Amino acid sequence: MEKRSELYRGKAKTVFTTDNPERLILQFRNDTSAFDGEKVEQLDRKGMVNNKFNNFIMAKLEAAGIPTQLDQVLSDTETLVKKLTMIPVECVVRNFAAGSLVRRLGVTEGQALNPPTFELFLKNDSLHDPMINDSHVVSFGWATAEQLAQMKALTLRVNDVLSKLFDAGGMMLVDFKLEFGVDADGTIVLGDEFSPDGCRLWDKETRKKLDKDRFRQGLGGVVEAYEEVAARIGVPL
Amino acid sequence: MEKRSELYRGKAKTVFTTDNPERLILQFRNDTSAFDGEKVEQLDRKGMVNNKFNNFIMAKLEAAGIPTQLDQVLSDTETLVKKLTMIPVECVVRNFAAGSLVRRLGVTEGQALNPPTFELFLKNDSLHDPMINDSHVVSFGWATAEQLAQMKALTLRVNDVLSKLFDAGGMMLVDFKLEFGVDADGTIVLGDEFSPDGCRLWDKETRKKLDKDRFRQGLGGVVEAYEEVAARIGVPL
Repeated sequence: MEKRSELYRGKAKTVFTTDNPERLILQFRNDTSAFDGEKVEQLDRKGMVNNKFNNFIMAKLEAAGIPTQLDQVLSDTETLVKKLTMIPVECVVRNFAAGSLVRRLGVTEGQALNPPTFELFLKNDSLHDPMINDSHVVSFGWATAEQLAQMKALTLRVNDVLSKLFDAGGMMLVDFKLEFGVDADGTIVLGDEFSPDGCRLWDKETRKKLDKDRFRQGLGGVVEAYEEVAARIGVPL
Repeated sequence: MEKRSELYRGKAKTVFTTDNPERLILQFRNDTSAFDGEKVEQLDRKGMVNNKFNNFIMAKLEAAGIPTQLDQVLSDTETLVKKLTMIPVECVVRNFAAGSLVRRLGVTEGQALNPPTFELFLKNDSLHDPMINDSHVVSFGWATAEQLAQMKALTLRVNDVLSKLFDAGGMMLVDFKLEFGVDADGTIVLGDEFSPDGCRLWDKETRKKLDKDRFRQGLGGVVEAYEEVAARIGVPL
């Protein structure tokens, strides 16, 4: 597999084309960003930790029957993935209230949400990823109603699988964000990444934050927390 | 029917208790407000026009099989209504893009929405009526999933009935907001009001605005526009 040109440079990953038109390479960088890219820092080892973390999680999800873009690990920071046509909608599940939900709805941080909430956000930096709903997705053609129903069902299954996984490691999966794409066969496939950059994880006993909120809130020990999470669920680093 | 004490003073209406515990009086005032109450003016005749407009629309909706709180017109500005336990969620249908949708999603004003979008907003001034979705309503207990499904079905039926009514008067029903409550039997009933204060109406040919955007945008002729809308659909003023 030969790496060719840079296709897209995101805030934390760079995507490269390869000599196979159906495969891309994800390169996980050390860049860590928050607040629509207003705060950016380089954190040692983060690219490697997130690449390995993501590969571990994606393999768990594949094993649970959820189609993912994962193909093959290439190096500490690079992974070969299936090329997907990405759907510009982020799917968010919340098991406990935190972050923007607390600010937007005036609810208490840490409040259990039963059933978990399911939210959609339009992936658009210049509009600051506004919250949208099912009817916007369909009316503006970002996905079909059928694709959206599959994305929701898959996201809730991911929540079941990962809530148990993190619980066994003494953590609460507070919330997380997923992105989906469509493969060459038209199948909805989980894309992007799952890492502590895109979810909230709290220690069950102390409620210590073990995710990117440590970076957003300047709490320090960001990559150390990611490594602790990895160790607790058995990610080989 | 004897008017008793003031129960609640909203931005444009005051609600009074009566000697019948199952009935309230809505008094439509001339107060006109926008931007969460930051802009407020008194506009002559608006209370009367909105009261008569609302009663006309509610009667049309009742005739179409939609349960409303309307009981009996009492005076030019007062109407007797069934007492409801209001659900703190606004239901918004949009047939064409305008207002906050345009700002939030960066779409073109006037773009036809097919199918129409259906949005929910939490009625909470201090939080600036944030957009919410079905899962928030259920998880935070603002309504049950069954109540929400009924609110949505009723809102879409109201859209069918009123889009035709305004179309026959040479107008586009761009969008509108409804509020529902639960009566003593547990039935979901349309409450609050339907008037040019809570919807957007454009002339079909010229796209002239005939609704509260005239007030928001300082275009003048606010009540005159409401009276024109009323005349076009046959509201006796």
